Amino acid sequence: MLIVVGAGLLLLPFATHQSIGVIDALFTATSAVTVTGLVVVDTGADFTLFGQTVIALLIQFGGLGLMTFAVVTLIAIGGKIGVFHQQVAATAFNQTKLATVTSTAKSVVLFALMVESLGMVLLFICWIDEMPIADALFHSFFYAISAFNNAGFALSSDSLSAYVGDPGTNLIITGLFITGGLGFVVWIDLYRQRRWHKLNLYSRVMIISTVIINVVVMLLFLLLEWNNSATLGALAESERWWAAWFHATTPRTAGFNTLDVAGYNDGTTILTILLMFVGAGSISTSSGIKLMTFVVLILSTYAFLRQREEIRIFNRSIPEHTVRKAFALTVISVSLIWIAFFLLSATHNLRFIDAIFEVVSAFGTVGLSRGITGELNPFGQFLIMFLMFFGRIGPLTLGYLLAKPKRNRVRYPSTEIPIG
Amino acid sequence: MLIVVGAGLLLLPFATHQSIGVIDALFTATSAVTVTGLVVVDTGADFTLFGQTVIALLIQFGGLGLMTFAVVTLIAIGGKIGVFHQQVAATAFNQTKLATVTSTAKSVVLFALMVESLGMVLLFICWIDEMPIADALFHSFFYAISAFNNAGFALSSDSLSAYVGDPGTNLIITGLFITGGLGFVVWIDLYRQRRWHKLNLYSRVMIISTVIINVVVMLLFLLLEWNNSATLGALAESERWWAAWFHATTPRTAGFNTLDVAGYNDGTTILTILLMFVGAGSISTSSGIKLMTFVVLILSTYAFLRQREEIRIFNRSIPEHTVRKAFALTVISVSLIWIAFFLLSATHNLRFIDAIFEVVSAFGTVGLSRGITGELNPFGQFLIMFLMFFGRIGPLTLGYLLAKPKRNRVRYPSTEIPIG
Ligand SMILES: [K+]
Ligand SMILES: [K+]
Repeated sequence: MLIVVGAGLLLLPFATHQSIGVIDALFTATSAVTVTGLVVVDTGADFTLFGQTVIALLIQFGGLGLMTFAVVTLIAIGGKIGVFHQQVAATAFNQTKLATVTSTAKSVVLFALMVESLGMVLLFICWIDEMPIADALFHSFFYAISAFNNAGFALSSDSLSAYVGDPGTNLIITGLFITGGLGFVVWIDLYRQRRWHKLNLYSRVMIISTVIINVVVMLLFLLLEWNNSATLGALAESERWWAAWFHATTPRTAGFNTLDVAGYNDGTTILTILLMFVGAGSISTSSGIKLMTFVVLILSTYAFLRQREEIRIFNRSIPEHTVRKAFALTVISVSLIWIAFFLLSATHNLRFIDAIFEVVSAFGTVGLSRGITGELNPFGQFLIMFLMFFGRIGPLTLGYLLAKPKRNRVRYPSTEIPIG
Repeated sequence: MLIVVGAGLLLLPFATHQSIGVIDALFTATSAVTVTGLVVVDTGADFTLFGQTVIALLIQFGGLGLMTFAVVTLIAIGGKIGVFHQQVAATAFNQTKLATVTSTAKSVVLFALMVESLGMVLLFICWIDEMPIADALFHSFFYAISAFNNAGFALSSDSLSAYVGDPGTNLIITGLFITGGLGFVVWIDLYRQRRWHKLNLYSRVMIISTVIINVVVMLLFLLLEWNNSATLGALAESERWWAAWFHATTPRTAGFNTLDVAGYNDGTTILTILLMFVGAGSISTSSGIKLMTFVVLILSTYAFLRQREEIRIFNRSIPEHTVRKAFALTVISVSLIWIAFFLLSATHNLRFIDAIFEVVSAFGTVGLSRGITGELNPFGQFLIMFLMFFGRIGPLTLGYLLAKPKRNRVRYPSTEIPIG
């Protein structure tokens, strides 16, 4: 619905400098609402200020998440919301207590607006010397929303490549999208508990695995790309570290780039595809199967190899049903990606690496591309639109539809964690 | 051990026309023992009759399976085998009754020799008009062993391309490798029960899914390749059907080819990669995660979507532990493939499509290649060797190591099926 309205607005004559096709408008709106960032029309050059503002608003509504959006709308329209709706929202939020829904929805919006405002101010300070005030203001507004929501939409066709070595831009943008990608649950937990040992299991696992994965991938990126003249090799040494940090963190849904992704070595490309598939936090502005699902897959396999029935982490066990949810979600996601990859390759004349990269990028609503988005025929565009749509709402919906409470006979105390 | 002995024999001066390197000999022996068929030395042109016979014997010993081989050896050497060894063999065979081990091992060998002899006679009749009797005899001997064991080793560098439209060769070769790939368990069950409704669950699922997958893939192959001048497009119409049948069945471990695999469309390539990953029957001459594992993944995900705790098939339920085994095996396999793909790509200058194809082909011990096997450096060769080795014995070993009996509270009667 939001996508159709968005596409309609983008088709208005004063949204673009030259008129665009219906499919292109639909694609752009889908990409914005699903916070993907794959584009067939140059956001900076072809859309007017009005069009760009529409895109930013689509990102904002899409990025707060369809579920958050639903909760907020219900509250805004209905005042008091019925028990059934509260139940839906509660499950979607993976929160078990009914009473916390309303306050949670408010917290989400408040938190998002606060972080975005802070990001906007900081970006404005960063960029005020480089461009006219009006431009700096709009750029800060656009990028703060795009970054916090992990949308990856940029106002230049080469994304943020101009700022490849700029510490301020690198820190603020990655700070915004990591904050958004970590997910509201973790931040609310952090805000309420403030002490490490009081945090719930999910928050602790998310924080630790996020730090580990970002650092490890950054080092791998440096190792793999250091002498690649198409990427790091062309930069000064200090710039390489910033670029490596940026490109280690951006694949898990953000989708901005400061280097040319098509210039990656194959090893880096393979690593990036995995990261795009995994994504970041549940109930966040990120997509993919989600980091926690990935962690559960690994822990479950490890437990199986150790002949343990329980999957243990931090002296807790993960319920069997949750593990099955993680596996089911992964099987469905991989199947979908493989079928889409097959269909895209069978109907287009694409390089293998470009096609798989594009498909996984769409599924993870990442938005990184090796440059083939514009070459897709209408069938391919609809396929990518479907992938973006499923990647954004599929895992969440599956997680909600399949959230069956079940008592487990476990020795360790059991704890619920969100999957998808 | 067998690999080292085999490599030693292949290094003997009268095994090859021109001397080959140690790594090449090791690679060839590994490829033969793991019944893969990836080659760095031309089997037909570079090896002497002695060398080719060594390869055939390595295939025969490797193909009967490391576990079968172990049972047979134990029986041959020890006469009566101890309970511990019987236990090992029993578990490896996924047979639950101790007493059946000895007779099972004998049946396996007898069955293999009978089928191979039959195949050899039929091939000999097919080929007697085309070549001298001695050649026809050796070719029949070599191909019967190579086909039944799903080894994919051929005496021509273009495999069986010369027989692309020959009904006899097509039927006999595919008949041999499908028979071997279906697995001894199914054949023994068929031999003992002879009636469909008396067959155990595993046999029925295997037969049905084998038929369905072969027919569906054949039709897809025809659809995708009909006008491709690099494959079917160059053939007469009747030949196209034979080639489609052959190439629909060969990826699930056999590895022979009558068309140039590098000429496939990308869609066909993607389909073939999936088939190579899946493989055929458990306890067979096939590798990969195995068809039954794949079926369990699908059934489990379907059951999860239907909110069912039990995974049902033919009025039976599959035990939870078996499902977890299937998922663990798949996670380990995919991780291994992805890591190998990463390492191969990072250390070689290969096309993406060639590298992933080669890695999955090695893991599934398929032996199809887009032609890069000869270009690998020693590291790449050892990587492929490791993959072939793990692909052949890994799933079986995991299946054995992790075969933990466990009582389930299920409403349907529970039945054991082999995974991996
Ligand atoms: K994105
Ligand atoms: K093979």
